[in-house]
Amino acid sequence: MTRELNQPLGGNVMPRFGGFATMMRLPTAAKAEGLDACFVGVPLDIGASNRSGARFGPRQIRAESSLLRPYNMATRAAPFDSLQVADIGDVPINTFNLADSVRRIEAFYDAIAATRCKPLTMGGDHTIVLPILRALAKQHGPIGIVHVDAHADINDTMFGEKIAHGTPFRRAIEEGLINPKRMTQIGLRGTGYIAEEFDWTRSQGARVVPVEECWYKSLAPLMSEVRASFGAGPVYISFDIDGLDPSCAPGTGTPEIGGLTTIQGLEIIRGCRGLDVIGGDLVEVAPPYDVSGNTSLLAANLLFEMLCVLPGVSYR
Amino acid sequence: MTRELNQPLGGNVMPRFGGFATMMRLPTAAKAEGLDACFVGVPLDIGASNRSGARFGPRQIRAESSLLRPYNMATRAAPFDSLQVADIGDVPINTFNLADSVRRIEAFYDAIAATRCKPLTMGGDHTIVLPILRALAKQHGPIGIVHVDAHADINDTMFGEKIAHGTPFRRAIEEGLINPKRMTQIGLRGTGYIAEEFDWTRSQGARVVPVEECWYKSLAPLMSEVRASFGAGPVYISFDIDGLDPSCAPGTGTPEIGGLTTIQGLEIIRGCRGLDVIGGDLVEVAPPYDVSGNTSLLAANLLFEMLCVLPGVSYR
Amino acid sequence: MTRELNQPLGGNVMPRFGGFATMMRLPTAAKAEGLDACFVGVPLDIGASNRSGARFGPRQIRAESSLLRPYNMATRAAPFDSLQVADIGDVPINTFNLADSVRRIEAFYDAIAATRCKPLTMGGDHTIVLPILRALAKQHGPIGIVHVDAHADINDTMFGEKIAHGTPFRRAIEEGLINPKRMTQIGLRGTGYIAEEFDWTRSQGARVVPVEECWYKSLAPLMSEVRASFGAGPVYISFDIDGLDPSCAPGTGTPEIGGLTTIQGLEIIRGCRGLDVIGGDLVEVAPPYDVSGNTSLLAANLLFEMLCVLPGVSYR
Amino acid sequence: MTRELNQPLGGNVMPRFGGFATMMRLPTAAKAEGLDACFVGVPLDIGASNRSGARFGPRQIRAESSLLRPYNMATRAAPFDSLQVADIGDVPINTFNLADSVRRIEAFYDAIAATRCKPLTMGGDHTIVLPILRALAKQHGPIGIVHVDAHADINDTMFGEKIAHGTPFRRAIEEGLINPKRMTQIGLRGTGYIAEEFDWTRSQGARVVPVEECWYKSLAPLMSEVRASFGAGPVYISFDIDGLDPSCAPGTGTPEIGGLTTIQGLEIIRGCRGLDVIGGDLVEVAPPYDVSGNTSLLAANLLFEMLCVLPGVSYR
Amino acid sequence: MTRELNQPLGGNVMPRFGGFATMMRLPTAAKAEGLDACFVGVPLDIGASNRSGARFGPRQIRAESSLLRPYNMATRAAPFDSLQVADIGDVPINTFNLADSVRRIEAFYDAIAATRCKPLTMGGDHTIVLPILRALAKQHGPIGIVHVDAHADINDTMFGEKIAHGTPFRRAIEEGLINPKRMTQIGLRGTGYIAEEFDWTRSQGARVVPVEECWYKSLAPLMSEVRASFGAGPVYISFDIDGLDPSCAPGTGTPEIGGLTTIQGLEIIRGCRGLDVIGGDLVEVAPPYDVSGNTSLLAANLLFEMLCVLPGVSYR
Amino acid sequence: MTRELNQPLGGNVMPRFGGFATMMRLPTAAKAEGLDACFVGVPLDIGASNRSGARFGPRQIRAESSLLRPYNMATRAAPFDSLQVADIGDVPINTFNLADSVRRIEAFYDAIAATRCKPLTMGGDHTIVLPILRALAKQHGPIGIVHVDAHADINDTMFGEKIAHGTPFRRAIEEGLINPKRMTQIGLRGTGYIAEEFDWTRSQGARVVPVEECWYKSLAPLMSEVRASFGAGPVYISFDIDGLDPSCAPGTGTPEIGGLTTIQGLEIIRGCRGLDVIGGDLVEVAPPYDVSGNTSLLAANLLFEMLCVLPGVSYR
Repeated sequence: MTRELNQPLGGNVMPRFGGFATMMRLPTAAKAEGLDACFVGVPLDIGASNRSGARFGPRQIRAESSLLRPYNMATRAAPFDSLQVADIGDVPINTFNLADSVRRIEAFYDAIAATRCKPLTMGGDHTIVLPILRALAKQHGPIGIVHVDAHADINDTMFGEKIAHGTPFRRAIEEGLINPKRMTQIGLRGTGYIAEEFDWTRSQGARVVPVEECWYKSLAPLMSEVRASFGAGPVYISFDIDGLDPSCAPGTGTPEIGGLTTIQGLEIIRGCRGLDVIGGDLVEVAPPYDVSGNTSLLAANLLFEMLCVLPGVSYR
Repeated sequence: MTRELNQPLGGNVMPRFGGFATMMRLPTAAKAEGLDACFVGVPLDIGASNRSGARFGPRQIRAESSLLRPYNMATRAAPFDSLQVADIGDVPINTFNLADSVRRIEAFYDAIAATRCKPLTMGGDHTIVLPILRALAKQHGPIGIVHVDAHADINDTMFGEKIAHGTPFRRAIEEGLINPKRMTQIGLRGTGYIAEEFDWTRSQGARVVPVEECWYKSLAPLMSEVRASFGAGPVYISFDIDGLDPSCAPGTGTPEIGGLTTIQGLEIIRGCRGLDVIGGDLVEVAPPYDVSGNTSLLAANLLFEMLCVLPGVSYR
Repeated sequence: MTRELNQPLGGNVMPRFGGFATMMRLPTAAKAEGLDACFVGVPLDIGASNRSGARFGPRQIRAESSLLRPYNMATRAAPFDSLQVADIGDVPINTFNLADSVRRIEAFYDAIAATRCKPLTMGGDHTIVLPILRALAKQHGPIGIVHVDAHADINDTMFGEKIAHGTPFRRAIEEGLINPKRMTQIGLRGTGYIAEEFDWTRSQGARVVPVEECWYKSLAPLMSEVRASFGAGPVYISFDIDGLDPSCAPGTGTPEIGGLTTIQGLEIIRGCRGLDVIGGDLVEVAPPYDVSGNTSLLAANLLFEMLCVLPGVSYR
Repeated sequence: MTRELNQPLGGNVMPRFGGFATMMRLPTAAKAEGLDACFVGVPLDIGASNRSGARFGPRQIRAESSLLRPYNMATRAAPFDSLQVADIGDVPINTFNLADSVRRIEAFYDAIAATRCKPLTMGGDHTIVLPILRALAKQHGPIGIVHVDAHADINDTMFGEKIAHGTPFRRAIEEGLINPKRMTQIGLRGTGYIAEEFDWTRSQGARVVPVEECWYKSLAPLMSEVRASFGAGPVYISFDIDGLDPSCAPGTGTPEIGGLTTIQGLEIIRGCRGLDVIGGDLVEVAPPYDVSGNTSLLAANLLFEMLCVLPGVSYR
Repeated sequence: MTRELNQPLGGNVMPRFGGFATMMRLPTAAKAEGLDACFVGVPLDIGASNRSGARFGPRQIRAESSLLRPYNMATRAAPFDSLQVADIGDVPINTFNLADSVRRIEAFYDAIAATRCKPLTMGGDHTIVLPILRALAKQHGPIGIVHVDAHADINDTMFGEKIAHGTPFRRAIEEGLINPKRMTQIGLRGTGYIAEEFDWTRSQGARVVPVEECWYKSLAPLMSEVRASFGAGPVYISFDIDGLDPSCAPGTGTPEIGGLTTIQGLEIIRGCRGLDVIGGDLVEVAPPYDVSGNTSLLAANLLFEMLCVLPGVSYR
Repeated sequence: MTRELNQPLGGNVMPRFGGFATMMRLPTAAKAEGLDACFVGVPLDIGASNRSGARFGPRQIRAESSLLRPYNMATRAAPFDSLQVADIGDVPINTFNLADSVRRIEAFYDAIAATRCKPLTMGGDHTIVLPILRALAKQHGPIGIVHVDAHADINDTMFGEKIAHGTPFRRAIEEGLINPKRMTQIGLRGTGYIAEEFDWTRSQGARVVPVEECWYKSLAPLMSEVRASFGAGPVYISFDIDGLDPSCAPGTGTPEIGGLTTIQGLEIIRGCRGLDVIGGDLVEVAPPYDVSGNTSLLAANLLFEMLCVLPGVSYR
């Protein structure tokens, strides 16, 4: 095949602090058509219940991603050797209306999903995973989920509302977007409204791995089990940055102590290699609380790692 | 009359950095009943079009207000000599739904207005002035407005929505809550969507004072004119902190350069003395962008100045 | 029993960023009387030898504690099912006079101790543990201590003074407030004035666990030993946030590298379950150095964990 | 004429915090060809003698410029009604070699100047004005200069080097790029290496307006004089953000107290209307010291004001 | 005379960000002996009633002072042409004991005063002016005072204490250290404990210039009056950085809105030229609240301006 | 021997926040002569490819080092019992010219090396290790290297330049300054320009330990191997703070996720005890991104640990 593949703008062509702030300094594209994977931003934070600010997540993740180079030194993945990737910009959410925003996101992802381009999403708060899954499930049927988070996000309602950043997985399971037998939640912890909060997903057939089961351990074995149990079929990675400990990811809206390490986060994503990953998201980066920019940089790296485990990526 | 008047907790009784963070370290009250004036918070920021964060305005203004002492050295106002004042807490807005929040705010202020207690509100974004005016106008009829702001806030819609932080004064005039003949907008400036943006209020009969007319000048003469033209009848002060220059008030969501000075802000509020002020608000403080805390402290001071010009305040 | 137990204000009643900033958004109480446990602040930082700022610890811990929900998902503790808890405010320390402040703190805790209400204290610098122990020992006799810290705090004097944040445990042992046979210091490290600095407590019979013995390890086994050796009798938990590594707790006054992890901090407190815990403190949070607010949030969580191991707490 | 003119992406199409961070959210262009004016970044800070960080100026100015709307409410300028404008990206400077960077900048501006497109430059430190003037003077001959700055920038050498951010105007005059009879320096102040530092430009025929002559005054009269004395012929605006007071522009590398106000900065640029402005720059914004982002926002506004005074701009 | 005069380390010898952080990069000296003027730090903040942090004032002022060059471009003062100046380091205050610190400061300044070297002090909170005046008055008798501040600092007690940062001028007048007929307080404002707070100094014969009398005005005429009324005799300048508006000096402990501008601050100090200035201080810079470092830089500049008005300074 | 050894200024003589900010509050010295070891700063950041700011590294490390006390509690090292140590200040680099700066650094270290005083260097960006090694190799011949870093720093060129912060170890090996058989690189990771980036050093005979081999493990065993393989002969420690994870060291210019822990950093340096360490550096601290100051404090501690493993240090 002879098509020209997009490459990140190199640091020897333009200094890393120069050039337009696209994700990884990739070329932009107006649509997903013709792309194998795309980065897309959803600058929404009106689904957040505590600190706001995630609306600036996509902008800040793009800005910090300028440090990323094209090869994954640990896994030898070379995604730009075999995939056509671009940054397709942001979903024009309606920041005054959460319900309308959810509709807009779904429509935007319908268009992506129709092309079979795999979306890697920069959030935004976790509300956005619901319309993304709605769009993807139309193409793929019920999807397997690797869900990294401090919170189960399976509340029935928040403040009486069905749609908010603490409810998307409840809705997604109810709507049949997710196959709960192929769902794993990793890193859950903290304080809860009800003592049984983590049991609902279990009751639906999902696996819940509270953070206490992860302490002091490599998660490579866990991911082997996940790969084995998930088998074939589409898988989506939804990574809430607050799944990691606040020491690793201070810039987020509802931090919980005692979380996963960055290393465990890397193991989880790298452990998805071999699954039929159809997309992923990195949500809940709140730049106003990320004074050094490092939480955004972490997010950019994790999104790059997701790119590296997409089917079809070359390894060197 | 022998009722005991609430006093701010003194710095010789509890150090300024100690004690619960109520506004001015005043006692709290569950309701407005029995109060002449109250401080109330509206922690809403989902009406904001640019930076979020104003949801933390009430909390941060309260925290910084602990430095305030009971007497106004410049004007010799002694509000706690004659008025019963308390902090009645926050309106439980629905952060996932702007329309519902606006309904909740209106209901909350209906209850206040029914008691004739004068509300001094800590925002929150400027959307909140609409439901406040709806409640107050039910009691008072069309209200006069002293509106300090960088923006006219008279857009018909924002992103297609009738309710947002850039539309409240359009709505309020349309609904007859405001008497535009008794309305002055001070400090307008910046860049606009349409070149005629500042003309609409004028066409309704209001006075618009662009910031360029304020540069290098005391605003005491302007306020004499305002007092003369407003005459008797209820007046509400709506003070968007972004009316002031970002050098004075960096911690806000849509800053515009070339603004009013803090001194001019003081002159405007002090110049309302003699009017029948029935309430006021201080909106758009965004604590995540207020790293020193000084914008919140400024806001607390301006709210105290509003208290000092309420009818019935004693002077020493 | 039919008394109504205080509950934290729920996030579905008032958004987490709204409402008065009391600890965990609990009701306040004017006194300890009638309470099983209380949160109390001691906003003192004039005992600190390096960075100041801990005077704002109680205020900031309260503000960030608004994210806490009532159930401990890891341990299933439900403290508000069985204990009456309130926030009783701050000790009115004299910020210009350390000796007078120490007297005031002791008197304040005398009143608490007399009621048998268990105080959970938000510091403030570590000086405050001395007057707290003085008050508690009057009721309980010599007390066992679980002391988490980077520093032994057993200097004889600092700058010639007997009272400062580096001396309280020397004084407490000398005064017989502590039973050194039932004392464990965990996390000690760093640079010292004298090479033998950690030996004095050992010479008194206490156990010292330098941080190097904790690296790469769960501290659950250590806590089993502590429980076994302490047996029955009153125990107090004194947790200096600088016991944790600066990566976990950057906002503190005398940080030392190579410290405990947050996870180990949780294991230590959770490992106190079963002991007769009569109170605890969390000291040395310095908000001016806690730019994201996360050190204060960590402190709030650790105080909640202390509440969860008090005798009499229900588990679900 | 029927060509379609670029417009900034509107806030009702994409929220202000969304979309790619180009200057004013304008379309990008690969070259200056076909444009009447362009925004261009020069991310260089290795010419700075005190704080570094200006390398991030272009990126941060672009990010904050997203708040700008297309009309100038004060002057009624509507630049996008009549000019074709785009953001052409950054000069790929060599951050390890100042001399090579200066060559690269000159070559880049040679290409712009050849098209007669007017460059509006986001710096970067003030070194960059030298190669810009070299390129422009090739097309225009000796240029008139409105230079706003705290520093004269006419050192012969710094640390023995001829090229650095304190020398460009010395070089430019020596090389005949500037017509010193048509040069005004406004805002000079501070401490100096030699007591005669401000006299050299005067000796060349330029006008120097120390900041003390500006205090308490509108600069509109000064600008009338400037316009009168400059007459016809090309004029370049070089605006060092440190010309303004640190209260207005904290985020810069060599701040000097007692500077111009933002209002005076606006008056200077607006006062250039009528001159044959061929380009301008805004330099020395250092984002690491601009914690609120407001210095970058100020810079974006000032660059927009420069656009508004270009010959050929429509007014409404 | 042939003695070699100390010069600040030049920026062409060592870059401004290099070298040891002494005041203005001057040589250090172990004592005042042989010096005409000295910079000295008093790192005390335990007299502060609100935010702490001024203990780091001397260190941070020194660090930021590295930008200062030796000549005053506005006044042409060349202090290092005629005066021997050095940085003599910090007073070793006892941070655990305010009374002892006050004694230590007095003893330290006794030694300075004995040499007739003029001390220019970097605070530290305002408490320190009392022991400084005690030492100076022993040599000079009652001293005239130019006092710039938001607060009168003439409380009788604070929290029952005679010594704190709000009481030094009461004490100094009571003790006869100050000649109140030769005392001017400039910039007073804000809220007060008692409505008569500013009247006490007046009752002693001093002149009080509330900030409202300064708004919109050059203070050069005021300073002419001050010079005329003070006549001959020793004068001390005590400059609390909170005399300036928080927009100019955000990094301070008890900020009050509506303050003096930096320009007015410069006019006050420059207006002391001709008086027999025997020393001065710049107090209440609180670096933890000075995120850009610019408040410290402002303080360094103001101290340099004080140096420039000492008797005996050369002008070029 | 009776020479008097320098001691850090004690916290009971001058509070930790007072006194001049020399490294560890040691005396300064004008030269290395007569010293066994010296601290020296190299305030260079023009070799940095991403964020600048490391020019302030020496100043900030010195400021934060004031917390350090003289004894190493973990290892019982007492370096000031047996070594003469001082802070000899900064190399006067030419911040406008990287090549000239490299020459200046080499000359400065030639002078140090000639005295056999062991330099412990505060960077500055990593470019500086090349001229340091050039100077040391002249005295010692090819040197063994313990290199902690996220990056191999063995690029042939960056942006076409042979000298930059990503090339020093390539140059040093090419020039024979290093014996690659006695070289270990620890902590390498991240994204790369070429997939083979880590193989070049291996091809030269060096050992490369990617960070993945370090996860979850004590590095004490690795260091045993290093000591065994290095044997006798000179060893230099070059510690790039970005070798540690950004959670531990946020304040740096090119952070990479998934790095070493602080504990592992301590193990590496402590594991050098017994080797013939002839010097070391700690580079790439970028204070503008180190908002709490804790990265600088970490750096100061690591430099102290290097001092503690120099041959000839006493242990207690």
